[in-house]
Amino acid sequence: MRTMVANLSRVVGPGGTVGILGGGQLGRMLSMAAARLGLRSAIYAPEPDCPAYQVCDAHVVASYSDHDALKKFANSVDVVTYEFENVPGDAAAVLSALKSVRPAPKALSVIQDRFAEKSFARRAGIQTTKFALIDSEASLDAALNDVGTPSVLKTSRLGYDGKGQRIVRNPDALLSAWDELKRVPCILEGFVDFTRELSLVAARGIDGSVSCYDLVENRHENHILRTTLAPARAPARIKAEAVRIAETLLGAFDYVGVMAVEMFETRAGQLLVNEIAPRVHNSGHWTIDACHVSQFEQHIRAVCGWPLGDASRHSDAVMTNLLGAEALDWQRLAVQPSSGLHLYGKGDARLGRKMGHITRLYLLGSRPDA
Amino acid sequence: MRTMVANLSRVVGPGGTVGILGGGQLGRMLSMAAARLGLRSAIYAPEPDCPAYQVCDAHVVASYSDHDALKKFANSVDVVTYEFENVPGDAAAVLSALKSVRPAPKALSVIQDRFAEKSFARRAGIQTTKFALIDSEASLDAALNDVGTPSVLKTSRLGYDGKGQRIVRNPDALLSAWDELKRVPCILEGFVDFTRELSLVAARGIDGSVSCYDLVENRHENHILRTTLAPARAPARIKAEAVRIAETLLGAFDYVGVMAVEMFETRAGQLLVNEIAPRVHNSGHWTIDACHVSQFEQHIRAVCGWPLGDASRHSDAVMTNLLGAEALDWQRLAVQPSSGLHLYGKGDARLGRKMGHITRLYLLGSRPDA
Repeated sequence: MRTMVANLSRVVGPGGTVGILGGGQLGRMLSMAAARLGLRSAIYAPEPDCPAYQVCDAHVVASYSDHDALKKFANSVDVVTYEFENVPGDAAAVLSALKSVRPAPKALSVIQDRFAEKSFARRAGIQTTKFALIDSEASLDAALNDVGTPSVLKTSRLGYDGKGQRIVRNPDALLSAWDELKRVPCILEGFVDFTRELSLVAARGIDGSVSCYDLVENRHENHILRTTLAPARAPARIKAEAVRIAETLLGAFDYVGVMAVEMFETRAGQLLVNEIAPRVHNSGHWTIDACHVSQFEQHIRAVCGWPLGDASRHSDAVMTNLLGAEALDWQRLAVQPSSGLHLYGKGDARLGRKMGHITRLYLLGSRPDA
Repeated sequence: MRTMVANLSRVVGPGGTVGILGGGQLGRMLSMAAARLGLRSAIYAPEPDCPAYQVCDAHVVASYSDHDALKKFANSVDVVTYEFENVPGDAAAVLSALKSVRPAPKALSVIQDRFAEKSFARRAGIQTTKFALIDSEASLDAALNDVGTPSVLKTSRLGYDGKGQRIVRNPDALLSAWDELKRVPCILEGFVDFTRELSLVAARGIDGSVSCYDLVENRHENHILRTTLAPARAPARIKAEAVRIAETLLGAFDYVGVMAVEMFETRAGQLLVNEIAPRVHNSGHWTIDACHVSQFEQHIRAVCGWPLGDASRHSDAVMTNLLGAEALDWQRLAVQPSSGLHLYGKGDARLGRKMGHITRLYLLGSRPDA
């Protein structure tokens, strides 16, 4: 009984308020998912205008380094979560002192650093791409020795959608690539000869229960996600292995919330972890239209201490991101059959910007490319 | 070409603002649907605290008789719609002078009055339950003669969910029933020996195109909707007749937006119109989870001049309203399989109040009771 009472006290029921750091489309869709469950949401972000402000119950415009504003925010909500992995450690600490921050800052601090992230995965017994830390001239040779070329040099922190990355085609190119990245700590990752890019979105509740969405297949263009096929056209063995990987990571972090694991399926049939996202993920957007409970609702459920919902899909799906000016074509997109159109309320349709997405549904097993 | 330009000028694209009169759960779900399409919403309602305020971009607390506030509201939005049929005629006129009000106030003024509504339907060639106006003692006898007993006496205006109704079991009871309703203008409606209560939710766009959801079957308890089965277990002939009725009414009103038509299927196999709702409707809530485009999105599309979306269902569904204290059982409801749980953000779970709903999905054709 003591456990039950303890758990209940960690639960945010209908009428409670979820605090969300970050006001982009992920924060926006988290807010909308919270509303579906009768929860209020409050957004905290530094930008004066954010997509999520349009749909939340309250919002605060302040810097992540403004400790007074963070404290006031923590006191105004019942639990804190975030839409992005680069939440500054200081901010997370200030918030944690006053309210539960879920997922816990421990996962954040590991995942914010690509080297720490991949090292953590390896220690948990999970295979990753080859990698090596580059934080000094001396480490360049060792990295070339371990990883070789062609490979990719990435800043260890603060990169996304291909930002902060350089392809290294031969050993001589490594030093200048590192110079271009201003000699910040980097990770050199080996090229992978893969058949498919896959990802698994999974959630873990405060009771330790885990629920996984179907493994999906992603296609990127210019380092930006273009299309997700759900489910992936992968063998059952690979699907089972992906679930095992997600369960292992969620458990190792004592994680609460939704996590996305990006993986490569190699030509040799191995599954290698490429990246972990401690948040809802673009490759899970298809779940809004094709699953009983979306990744956004699942995350809200988890961080509010609710039981996880039914993550099964009622339909097969193809999700396509709408980038930049593509979203201006909304009148044509709006008449696509069997489709859910989502636009994020962003004013400026600049090149490559994620403006929305569209998910086409198919009866189970009837997707043309399946 | 002139028509196309004229139509385009009537379109509210992404980034525009939909003004919604009324801040209950219907306004809330309309706001959320607008947000999905990248539209902003502003709510106008007299109550200081409303479920819809939690999810909209802006809200105004003011009376529907405050013409200055109405004008200011009209000037702050791009189009005006409403979540309830009892919008005062004066308010609609003030708003219409400044912005498009959709559906147009003409439909409102007819549907607000049960006698005018049923007379309108009859003139459009649609069968209804028997009815007669009672607005004087002299009209009592004529009504008894035309309609007979048992029958139902309803205030001609401002009734919903069984409020303002009296059952009249024998001729002698009519006068006292009318006294109980304070002798306001009433309509006496004949009892119908029906097999099923059905409703059809349909939409009409600014281009005159019509899109119908599947005919559904409703079960009421204490005059409040309890359950909707989608699709209805009705013969194809009845389904086709329901579509014809909806198309006729939408055309007759030159309607723009979503309309719901409640009907009885009699034991003799006739379809009689019982009520028309010039708005999104409780019997269309199942469309959020089971259709590609929900009734809420369809209404927003129509009033914003967008093309109507795909109203087909990807799943069969049973929608159950959560009334009063039933919603307090959210932890159990949250683990129902294949279900979408919706809570409306209302604080006070008083008896019979619509607090939320839950929609259970089934693969097409596999609903157990089908």
